[in-house]
Amino acid sequence: MSDIPGYDTIRWQDNAVIMIDQRRLPEEEVYLTCTDYREVVEAIRALAIRGAPAIGVAAAMAAALGALGCSETDPRAFQRHFQDICQVIAKARPTAVNLTWAVQRMQTLVAANGDLGVPALKEKLVAEAQAMLAEDIRINRQMGAHGQTLIHDGDAVLTHCNAGGLATGGYGTAIGVIRAAWEAGKKIQVWVDETRPVLQGARLTAWELGKLGIPHILIPDNAAAALMAKGRVNCVVVGADRIAANGDVANKIGTYGVAVWASYHHIPFYVAAPLSTFDFTLSDGSQIPIEERDPAEVTRMHGRGIAPAGCPALNLAFDVTPHTLIAGIITEHGICRPPLPAAVAALQDAARSCPGA
Amino acid sequence: MSDIPGYDTIRWQDNAVIMIDQRRLPEEEVYLTCTDYREVVEAIRALAIRGAPAIGVAAAMAAALGALGCSETDPRAFQRHFQDICQVIAKARPTAVNLTWAVQRMQTLVAANGDLGVPALKEKLVAEAQAMLAEDIRINRQMGAHGQTLIHDGDAVLTHCNAGGLATGGYGTAIGVIRAAWEAGKKIQVWVDETRPVLQGARLTAWELGKLGIPHILIPDNAAAALMAKGRVNCVVVGADRIAANGDVANKIGTYGVAVWASYHHIPFYVAAPLSTFDFTLSDGSQIPIEERDPAEVTRMHGRGIAPAGCPALNLAFDVTPHTLIAGIITEHGICRPPLPAAVAALQDAARSCPGA
Repeated sequence: MSDIPGYDTIRWQDNAVIMIDQRRLPEEEVYLTCTDYREVVEAIRALAIRGAPAIGVAAAMAAALGALGCSETDPRAFQRHFQDICQVIAKARPTAVNLTWAVQRMQTLVAANGDLGVPALKEKLVAEAQAMLAEDIRINRQMGAHGQTLIHDGDAVLTHCNAGGLATGGYGTAIGVIRAAWEAGKKIQVWVDETRPVLQGARLTAWELGKLGIPHILIPDNAAAALMAKGRVNCVVVGADRIAANGDVANKIGTYGVAVWASYHHIPFYVAAPLSTFDFTLSDGSQIPIEERDPAEVTRMHGRGIAPAGCPALNLAFDVTPHTLIAGIITEHGICRPPLPAAVAALQDAARSCPGA
Repeated sequence: MSDIPGYDTIRWQDNAVIMIDQRRLPEEEVYLTCTDYREVVEAIRALAIRGAPAIGVAAAMAAALGALGCSETDPRAFQRHFQDICQVIAKARPTAVNLTWAVQRMQTLVAANGDLGVPALKEKLVAEAQAMLAEDIRINRQMGAHGQTLIHDGDAVLTHCNAGGLATGGYGTAIGVIRAAWEAGKKIQVWVDETRPVLQGARLTAWELGKLGIPHILIPDNAAAALMAKGRVNCVVVGADRIAANGDVANKIGTYGVAVWASYHHIPFYVAAPLSTFDFTLSDGSQIPIEERDPAEVTRMHGRGIAPAGCPALNLAFDVTPHTLIAGIITEHGICRPPLPAAVAALQDAARSCPGA
């Protein structure tokens, strides 16, 4: 289903949500089976599944699972219960807007089919969640086709965090662009930021690129600036968790720092994200809620302290990159080019008039 | 001896070199006892002791230990053997020039006392190594006194890696400056970069600041840019491993990136280093040899992989910050201010005319 060699990020099977447990990668490829929507919510919170598009799909599947678990036979009672479930799902994590987007889409489906009986509505919700997975993979391939034109034969491409098949239904946003360039025959090499503290780069991106056979070299996050100064980075491609109407991008902590370095060294910095990651209700990035996670993610590793016991630590999960540092936002509708506020506004108009593009 | 509460970075005792094993901090405070110079060389290579001034002192003590181990009674035979030992010590690690500086100082002592018998020469070498430790601590205090004037009451100071008591004979270079500001009654807070891959910030700087009671918060290296953008960093102070004649600074990987961020956010970026860290034979930083260490330092932690088995990784131990990004270099002779090429040249002249300052 996911079109990724050898694994599925997430799938719907026999009325259960099955996902690869990303906390245990790369050491073990273990799958979680969730039969209750609360298990999916917990998997999102605990980072068993992460990445804005992937948690969008997970949220939709959680909603479908929640619907199946409702015992109400009266449509109105069912809908009230379903709304409660959706609220719980939407609050699993605060920054990635895909979570809200996916839940709202499921709610819209219910609202639009108020005349259906509960069994038919449940069936529709399950079908919609599965459609959203397939759609996400299709959208990623479209982004790849658009974005790969920005990568040239021989380029060394830096990426931060994991915006790959694991962060999506499959194929990937930023890694999808890299993969599409590779599949187009371009000889490229990827610098993989390890991405502290949760090491999504070291654990997940390196694992994906290894499976895909795309040459890559892992580096500590702090080493990228020195490589840029030596001319060893030709472009940067990252994903996004939420994009404001002016093109400001919230993404994994450290993304903003990479963007500043890229700007300083005149290296193009690209963001790849589907339309579902845009939050047109926010005028700029300062309004994006930034999740602060448990400091133990910074101070501990493999169950052991890497800092003195009780050491205070700050664990901001995301930062905001202002649109002025971004050379292009790659979407399924094409590439938004600076000035991004105007380009994102045009994208919104285009998406309204042609939602299925 | 070291003037640091509760521990000695390195000391000479009963014809042995005793050092706290920094690989095991902060979990355990364990001391290594070296009775053969090759054990000190191995301790330097394996990062049991690290930090440019500290490995300078360790190199001098290794030379003294090597001298004591020479069985020759003929002064010329002894001197030949001693030169061989010095060559081994000088090659322990390539980037920090203090290693070469310390070894050369011991060699100069031997050359200047060619008329002494072997026992008297050995005694002189042992005394010199101990003097270099005491001198290093005195120099750090002088740097602290000069540098603390750059830190203001209420400042949040960011530091990278460990340039503290553990990186020196005692007191510290960058941490010495921070400590002197704190001892002058300024209410400050320190942002501690964890400093991947070896985590000198998380393991050592956080441990030192905890012992000193100086408020600090640990962050992943990649988070500093976002804090700077929010106005939560007032200045940066780091140490150095080698400084070229034009003021370009080699220091722990990631330092250059912090300097670029500081410049972008108009935050002053300071370097604290003794005269022994300057290499006036190199016209600029491009000539400084940069150590490349085992990729396993990046890919493994606590004996377990944090990346897929066989994942290629690059582990550059240092990077070079161009002098144009540096607001001041704090030395025991005062603060070099931009333009740094002229200021460093003046420092060299001043040091020549007044070496004991």
